[in-house]
Amino acid sequence: MKHLLVIAHGSRRQESNDEIRLLGERIAAMNHHGFDGVHCAFLELADPSIPDGIRHCAAQGASEIVIMPYFLSAGRHVSEDIPREVDLTRQEFPDVRIHIARYLGSIDLIAELVANHASEVTA
Amino acid sequence: MKHLLVIAHGSRRQESNDEIRLLGERIAAMNHHGFDGVHCAFLELADPSIPDGIRHCAAQGASEIVIMPYFLSAGRHVSEDIPREVDLTRQEFPDVRIHIARYLGSIDLIAELVANHASEVTA
Repeated sequence: MKHLLVIAHGSRRQESNDEIRLLGERIAAMNHHGFDGVHCAFLELADPSIPDGIRHCAAQGASEIVIMPYFLSAGRHVSEDIPREVDLTRQEFPDVRIHIARYLGSIDLIAELVANHASEVTA
Repeated sequence: MKHLLVIAHGSRRQESNDEIRLLGERIAAMNHHGFDGVHCAFLELADPSIPDGIRHCAAQGASEIVIMPYFLSAGRHVSEDIPREVDLTRQEFPDVRIHIARYLGSIDLIAELVANHASEVTA
C-alpha cells in the first residue's frame, strides 16, 4: 500500500488550505499513478500537521509513504523543517518506508508548464 | 514583440531569488513558445521590482507583455498586490498590451505534475 502525502506550508487564509485539499482530491481521482491513498498535510497554520498526516497514512495501512513538498523554493522549510517533522514521526512506524520527494519547484517540467500556460494567454 | 514576465514573491535568501532567475533563463532557452523575451521580477525583497520588470520589457521593444504570477495560492499577493503594481506601471506604457495570466497553482496540470513526480520516487 503506497500513499502520497502532499505537504504545503499552510495559511491563515482557509481558501489557500482548501486549494491544497482540493489538489489532493484531484490527484486521488487520477488512478494511474499507483497510489492507494492521497492526502495532504501542513507545516504550520493548518491541519493536519505533518506527523498527523503520516499517522493517517499509516492508519490506512500504508507500507510506503511518499512525502511531496508543495513548495516553490528550497528554503529552510524544505531543507530543514519538513525533514525534521518527518524524522520525528518516522520512529513511530519502523515498518513503513517513508521517502521525501524533491520539492515542486525543483521539477524541470515546471519551466515548460509556465511557458505553455503563459503562451496561451491572449489579448 | 511579446515578452513574458514571471513574477515571484522574492526572498531574503538569494538562492531562492536565483532559482527564479534560472527558471526565467530556462524558459528563454525554449524557443517554441512565441516569446521574444523572458524576464523575471519580484513583488518584494528582491530586484527587479514589478514596475522595473515591465519597464525593462518595454525598453526591449515589447508590444505585449504576459505577466505570470509564480505563486501556488490565490492569496492577497495574487489577487491584489500584483494587479496593483501592474496597473500603476501600465499607465506609463499606453501602447503596450499587458495581460496577467492565472497564477501557477491554478493550472490544472499541476496535479498531474505532482502525481507523476511523486510516483517516480522509489525506495
